[in-house]
Amino acid sequence: MKVIGIIAEYNPFHNGHLHQILQVKQNNPEAMLVVAMSGNLLQRGEPAIFDKWVRTEVALKNGVDVVLEIPVEGSLQSADKFAEAGIRTLMDFGVDELYFGAEHSEYDFLDYAQKIRNLDTSKFKEYDSSFAKQIQNAVSEKIGHDLTNPNDLLGLSYAKAVLKFKAKIKLVPIQRINAEYHDAFLPDKGEIASATAIRHALFQSDEPIAKYVPQNVTYDNLQKVSWEDLWPYLRYKLITTDLNELKKISGVVEGIENRLVKYANELPKETTFETWLQKVKSKRFTYTRLTRIASSILIDLKKTEVQAYEKVPFYRLLGFTSKGRKVLNTAKKQLNYTMYTKISQDDKDGKYAVNYRTGKVYSLVTGVQQDLKRAPLMIK
Amino acid sequence: MKVIGIIAEYNPFHNGHLHQILQVKQNNPEAMLVVAMSGNLLQRGEPAIFDKWVRTEVALKNGVDVVLEIPVEGSLQSADKFAEAGIRTLMDFGVDELYFGAEHSEYDFLDYAQKIRNLDTSKFKEYDSSFAKQIQNAVSEKIGHDLTNPNDLLGLSYAKAVLKFKAKIKLVPIQRINAEYHDAFLPDKGEIASATAIRHALFQSDEPIAKYVPQNVTYDNLQKVSWEDLWPYLRYKLITTDLNELKKISGVVEGIENRLVKYANELPKETTFETWLQKVKSKRFTYTRLTRIASSILIDLKKTEVQAYEKVPFYRLLGFTSKGRKVLNTAKKQLNYTMYTKISQDDKDGKYAVNYRTGKVYSLVTGVQQDLKRAPLMIK
Repeated sequence: MKVIGIIAEYNPFHNGHLHQILQVKQNNPEAMLVVAMSGNLLQRGEPAIFDKWVRTEVALKNGVDVVLEIPVEGSLQSADKFAEAGIRTLMDFGVDELYFGAEHSEYDFLDYAQKIRNLDTSKFKEYDSSFAKQIQNAVSEKIGHDLTNPNDLLGLSYAKAVLKFKAKIKLVPIQRINAEYHDAFLPDKGEIASATAIRHALFQSDEPIAKYVPQNVTYDNLQKVSWEDLWPYLRYKLITTDLNELKKISGVVEGIENRLVKYANELPKETTFETWLQKVKSKRFTYTRLTRIASSILIDLKKTEVQAYEKVPFYRLLGFTSKGRKVLNTAKKQLNYTMYTKISQDDKDGKYAVNYRTGKVYSLVTGVQQDLKRAPLMIK
Repeated sequence: MKVIGIIAEYNPFHNGHLHQILQVKQNNPEAMLVVAMSGNLLQRGEPAIFDKWVRTEVALKNGVDVVLEIPVEGSLQSADKFAEAGIRTLMDFGVDELYFGAEHSEYDFLDYAQKIRNLDTSKFKEYDSSFAKQIQNAVSEKIGHDLTNPNDLLGLSYAKAVLKFKAKIKLVPIQRINAEYHDAFLPDKGEIASATAIRHALFQSDEPIAKYVPQNVTYDNLQKVSWEDLWPYLRYKLITTDLNELKKISGVVEGIENRLVKYANELPKETTFETWLQKVKSKRFTYTRLTRIASSILIDLKKTEVQAYEKVPFYRLLGFTSKGRKVLNTAKKQLNYTMYTKISQDDKDGKYAVNYRTGKVYSLVTGVQQDLKRAPLMIK
């Protein structure tokens, strides 16, 4: 049994994702497709536009056989840590090959990862906005050319994670087509738009998006979630929490908590999340880094919880097809760590606690219970 | 210099309050009038309809000479503790006589307080809904008649506090007129309505209330605050806070935190504060007791903070008239504890911290800064 893996966020699932899956299927008609997917808070530090169950169902209806959650301890991290959480999950479920989009599918990412394996990053002044640039320069030097496109960089993170965990996973970059990662608007022609453009259409422009998503999918009448929905809670949390408590939150370093609280206090009542963030932003703290910190504060994700997850991870099964059951049966025999299917009253205070909190906060907006007693989705 | 004291909430200030002040002035034309007033969260566990500055200004314009804040450590407590906070403040500012409304102004409250001084309440099962009833029965036995009206009971609490602190304050009950304490509707005739009826008119019925408030007062165009405005924050706090942390909050005992969180979790997204509270209510936890707990959780008022205040209180000056300055000048020489006028960056993390948090939470609704750098109001 060949098992293909994908690391995804599906925010939301669209024709570009379907295209990728069809390519996998074309190359591997018999293979199983396992996806490690972020839950309700994503790697760029924002809430998913639709909850993890909606996104799981759409994936299962469009060729994915098993969906596993990347816990927030892994999703609300830099690309390297996010990749590690994804790879670690996929390897334990027997994935043989990882498919991922890349701007340069001809690159040998594993080779690059090996070349920069001993790159000493300690000489770089950490966290500076030029930090990424300096790393990139050093990487370029080692591998002989620039590596700057976002999906290429993510590919490198996957390769580094594969090396780190000695995962027996072959990397299969596939050429990205059409939509650019961050295109803000729907394209003039074609049926593939970026997730960013689709979200923009759903939230702001009201342009129809049916053309850009699989025919068996509709996002009409679903509650959408954005940072603006969660911002009142974050603001309340910031103004009522002791600074010493904030310091315990994942990503909170170098006194950034002072700036976060200062502007939560000082800006007018009507201030939006975006305005607050622009005020807080500085050379040392980029937009995405801050949104990840904001997400972590919102759900009270502590540094100790991230460390505990990295030491002893766990899995959460979100859904599977009847075909995918075989992957699960095989994996079950070899799993090193706990796999959660349902979350019980006991589990919610256990290792899954911060993910449970995340679901509760998310459901303040949607009203849809996220974890307690929810069984994995099963699609024929 | 004769100094008269009143303990009040002015939620909001109306003709009944004015009537009381005019009576004081009639009996004591030369006296100073000092009011100890709850801040933005009141003794019945609810937010003040208007912030403490609005209420201070109205009081100063209608005969009050000095307004001092009863900190939340004192205001969010049972009648006895609330009375203690008020009396302790007033005695330190040289108050000679306490005026208060009573359903039976002929009662000798100090005598009653002396008679029940050694009442052993330990035999009563604490917190049971019949607890108050049992205490009342025992009190009736000691003093020879029933004492059940709300203002009479509060009068008894004042008297007990006077005894406890050996305060040299004479109690002057004045007969309550017209409006009953909890009348929900504006009266058919007259110019005195209950605060409850006025709030009801302001929030719900849109009936004009100008007739029931002093002529120099308008409540038009002011941001009103109710529990429904604060409920989203409380709900977020309940679902994201560890149960062991909730146990540290003032008033949280006997596992009530479990019920609070359970219903915050389980009830539908649209659930109002009132609906949640009705669900949580039980024989052992009355409505008002629960709203005080809810308020305490909202602002993270810890048991240790209440204890610290009771051990070492402090004063916060909210406003004064030019005449009232004399009271302050005299008091300053004899104050045992810190008097805050402005709240500085340092003070906000000090003894005043939980009151500062209260102001920040309240201003999430109003947008009006409550404490930092706000000087006491001065009225000519």
